[in-house]
Amino acid sequence: MQNKKNAEGKSKVNRKPERGFHDDKTIHKIIDEAQYCHVSFIQEDQPFIIPTIHARLDDSLVLHGAKASRLIKQVSTGNEIAIAITILDGLVLARSVFHHSMNYRSVVIFGKGVEITDDKKKMKALKAITDHILQGRWDDARKPNEKELKATSVISVKIDEASAKIRTGPPKDDEDDYSLPVWAGVLPIVKLIGEPEADPVLKKGISIPDYIGRIIK
Amino acid sequence: MQNKKNAEGKSKVNRKPERGFHDDKTIHKIIDEAQYCHVSFIQEDQPFIIPTIHARLDDSLVLHGAKASRLIKQVSTGNEIAIAITILDGLVLARSVFHHSMNYRSVVIFGKGVEITDDKKKMKALKAITDHILQGRWDDARKPNEKELKATSVISVKIDEASAKIRTGPPKDDEDDYSLPVWAGVLPIVKLIGEPEADPVLKKGISIPDYIGRIIK
Repeated sequence: MQNKKNAEGKSKVNRKPERGFHDDKTIHKIIDEAQYCHVSFIQEDQPFIIPTIHARLDDSLVLHGAKASRLIKQVSTGNEIAIAITILDGLVLARSVFHHSMNYRSVVIFGKGVEITDDKKKMKALKAITDHILQGRWDDARKPNEKELKATSVISVKIDEASAKIRTGPPKDDEDDYSLPVWAGVLPIVKLIGEPEADPVLKKGISIPDYIGRIIK
Repeated sequence: MQNKKNAEGKSKVNRKPERGFHDDKTIHKIIDEAQYCHVSFIQEDQPFIIPTIHARLDDSLVLHGAKASRLIKQVSTGNEIAIAITILDGLVLARSVFHHSMNYRSVVIFGKGVEITDDKKKMKALKAITDHILQGRWDDARKPNEKELKATSVISVKIDEASAKIRTGPPKDDEDDYSLPVWAGVLPIVKLIGEPEADPVLKKGISIPDYIGRIIK
């Protein structure tokens, strides 16, 4: 799981190469933590970009959607697509405007979508996506029935040509600016799960399951 | 500011049209709240997607970057680009796997980039971007000097063909599923600014400015 990715061509990190990573471990970790991705594809010479939920199954990214959706129709054609996954970690406030930045972890994947048509594999991918939304949810919720499974398309994209880009740490200012009387540092962005909002029509007597209680602490 | 956007063609919301909005007020609010965007463009028949910081100046989106960056080189060509801005608000846990969803606010803009070359307009755009990172920061930090201004390109994209898509509220399950003994509801995603991390080499005696203190309460 630590194979060297193709670090040339499209996924080469050209700008600030010191922020670039091409190993599976780094790439997979970012994919697994992010709650959604953006998929970019070309339709009639026009770039499109659509946010969607994803999950990782080994070394593939899986996406799903309604059979009739633009995303599924375009991504299942096997044309080239690009997928970005971005986690914002902090606002980097330098002494100079020029050196302002963000701390972030991002992955870009270049690949082609392949539709998963085998029902068993489809269910496995849908389990991965459901548990990616919330670990433990698949076992608790009602599984897809035949009709729902038919209405849903699942697309797999090999995480083959991919790169991660990461910025961490304090701002970097020009030597001369360190003496300026300007506060500099990082404002961390913290993402939390807030107090669960039960469905107003939730049946009485159903308490919050353990796998939710655990993550809201 | 409430003009009807072009609700046909590329930016028409086809799936779940009840979630679609085309008015400036809704679109601008999402753009203003989001901390970054994803830009998609085509280079040699290949879709690319890059996360970057943005700001809104009236009815245009402004982006910036190093002159030599792929983003700037491609986006300043005047070719078609697509920009997505997505805010995740909550995980929507339905009784059935099929109806799981996310609460979100998203905008997609289709347009073309135009480079801003006038120095005064460039500075205005950089102020908008800096204050979009953190309101009040431009006035506090050292402004770009001539060399920095030259090394930075600023691109403007008219928010002309754009649409917003919003999902709010509890899950919607199939009638038969409401009797299932499964907890259903929304887990809100809360984004906070954490405790400021001062640059380890910050000059002594510089306290956290008001415009930061205010947002961390």
